[in-house]
Amino acid sequence: MLVNSKEIVMKELLDRYIDQLHMKCTCPICKNDVLALSLNQVKPSYVTDKKKIAYNKAELVDKQKNTAMLVILAESAAIVSAGPGDNCVTKKREEQKS
Amino acid sequence: MLVNSKEIVMKELLDRYIDQLHMKCTCPICKNDVLALSLNQVKPSYVTDKKKIAYNKAELVDKQKNTAMLVILAESAAIVSAGPGDNCVTKKREEQKS
Repeated sequence: MLVNSKEIVMKELLDRYIDQLHMKCTCPICKNDVLALSLNQVKPSYVTDKKKIAYNKAELVDKQKNTAMLVILAESAAIVSAGPGDNCVTKKREEQKS
Repeated sequence: MLVNSKEIVMKELLDRYIDQLHMKCTCPICKNDVLALSLNQVKPSYVTDKKKIAYNKAELVDKQKNTAMLVILAESAAIVSAGPGDNCVTKKREEQKS
């Protein structure tokens, strides 16, 4: 296996704090856009076995690192909310109505 | 979908130049170790749709970017060859023999 452990950490943080991020839309498309924007801003941390993921997930307990990543998530959420992608479910629904 | 397009580019480069990298072992474990080491050194480029992957793969045509990434792969291959991981298939086989 080959996985960027930051991907797992960010996904978990996003799910945990989704309500506080005040996103305009929380469809899977928008959530992935927020994750992509956020992950492009943090140093990747690829690992090749499951044990090392656990080690990286332990960082979630570190309040300081946690806050730094939450700031990145919040900034990305604001960008996506300001201009959701063309495939955003809410956006498509609104276009169909009009 | 959410994918680091560098992952795809690196995998393709590794497969294309595997013979020139003179790795001691090319089992899937060692290949993944080389990819993880390499990907941790390049800026991630997460995308959320397939079209953007194609755009990033187009970078493979750019000789200069290509060379920079091959240097990173070669350095990682040297590190892994010098000390293969505990799960390396060749290493395990040798240990069983002795």
